[in-house]
Amino acid sequence: MTLNIVDPAVTELPIMTIHDFPEGPYPTRVRIAVAEKNLQSRVEFVMVDLYKGEHKRPEFISEKNYSGTLPVLELPDGTCIAECTAITEYLDALDGEPTLTGKAPLEKGMIHMMSKRAELELLDAISVYFHHATPGLGPEVELYQNPEWGFRQRDKAVRAMHYFNDILKKQPFVAGSAFSMADITVIGGLVFASIVKLSVPAECEALLAWYARMRERPSVSSQPAFA
Amino acid sequence: MTLNIVDPAVTELPIMTIHDFPEGPYPTRVRIAVAEKNLQSRVEFVMVDLYKGEHKRPEFISEKNYSGTLPVLELPDGTCIAECTAITEYLDALDGEPTLTGKAPLEKGMIHMMSKRAELELLDAISVYFHHATPGLGPEVELYQNPEWGFRQRDKAVRAMHYFNDILKKQPFVAGSAFSMADITVIGGLVFASIVKLSVPAECEALLAWYARMRERPSVSSQPAFA
Repeated sequence: MTLNIVDPAVTELPIMTIHDFPEGPYPTRVRIAVAEKNLQSRVEFVMVDLYKGEHKRPEFISEKNYSGTLPVLELPDGTCIAECTAITEYLDALDGEPTLTGKAPLEKGMIHMMSKRAELELLDAISVYFHHATPGLGPEVELYQNPEWGFRQRDKAVRAMHYFNDILKKQPFVAGSAFSMADITVIGGLVFASIVKLSVPAECEALLAWYARMRERPSVSSQPAFA
Repeated sequence: MTLNIVDPAVTELPIMTIHDFPEGPYPTRVRIAVAEKNLQSRVEFVMVDLYKGEHKRPEFISEKNYSGTLPVLELPDGTCIAECTAITEYLDALDGEPTLTGKAPLEKGMIHMMSKRAELELLDAISVYFHHATPGLGPEVELYQNPEWGFRQRDKAVRAMHYFNDILKKQPFVAGSAFSMADITVIGGLVFASIVKLSVPAECEALLAWYARMRERPSVSSQPAFA
């Protein structure tokens, strides 16, 4: 299922395929990166139905992504790049502006660290909660659940909201003075928090104000996750 | 506790501090990166005792690394970079050769993906097994354990050994034709496997042959984890 109509005027450039689930928190990260870099016309989004477990089928795992997750970027020659941060790094290296992964060494290191921290402490934690302590994608996809672990991860994610709130009291963006992949990862975390009905605590005012600013960016507000 | 004597001849360059546990699988990754890039003279290693839980103390968490893990790179101005891949990316950006994170877009994307995959499927999975289904760092540090989750992660790591074996049948290094951060991450995984006495299955011949080659590299063989 093709979700994005390719502009015939730019078809000289090779078209990349993104295996996608439009409202998913992880796919939303790569969708935002594509929009920030204005690469929409070079990408064709192909739907993989998470609720049917299409990402867990043997052919998807052997041909697209061993880890059985979305999104996956597929190049015209069939090479597949999985993991949101790897895809973002690839897209960033294709052309320079705006940069989402940084240029100077310290900037690159801090963006990478804060994005990883946002995965570990917030986004991935909420994902584990969703898959292990809620119905998740349903009984046909969630073949094993560990609710106790899921609830621990939920609590970790709420602590992380306070951590990112403290960071955003001191600086306008998650990794410093510019929008980056780290902001996109926290946005992914809050998209997933909304899906699992995990509210950002009202006292996290800096995080909430930052999120309101993020949702004003066209790259963010245009995503199906915010429809 | 200082483990590395700084050569006075190069003290004009700023000295970076690495908060370290010399035999630890994650610290070993950054130690290998430092050695590959020949930056030993610019780094001072400072011991943080994992078995005493020094990495979980409030001051370490608030000042060095919110996630309470090692290693952490501390710059002369006090800025801390946690996460092995972020530290490696910073060190790689400081100077160019040899590159551990790649240069061309596809190379950068593949190295990043394979390193992340090696974390998710192998190294981090064994870490969870260690902390949740074995005595781990001991009862004073392991305040919560979920053995069932730990055993699931152990089984996932064994599957990943077969996956990386299949990859290494087709190419000499984890992310393609050159040594990279992705190899370092799989090395970290096999260091941790050894600590928890999880053997690489004998039929994983390509993985075992690759690991033997890796252990011949001075950057690897010189590490305390291989003493």
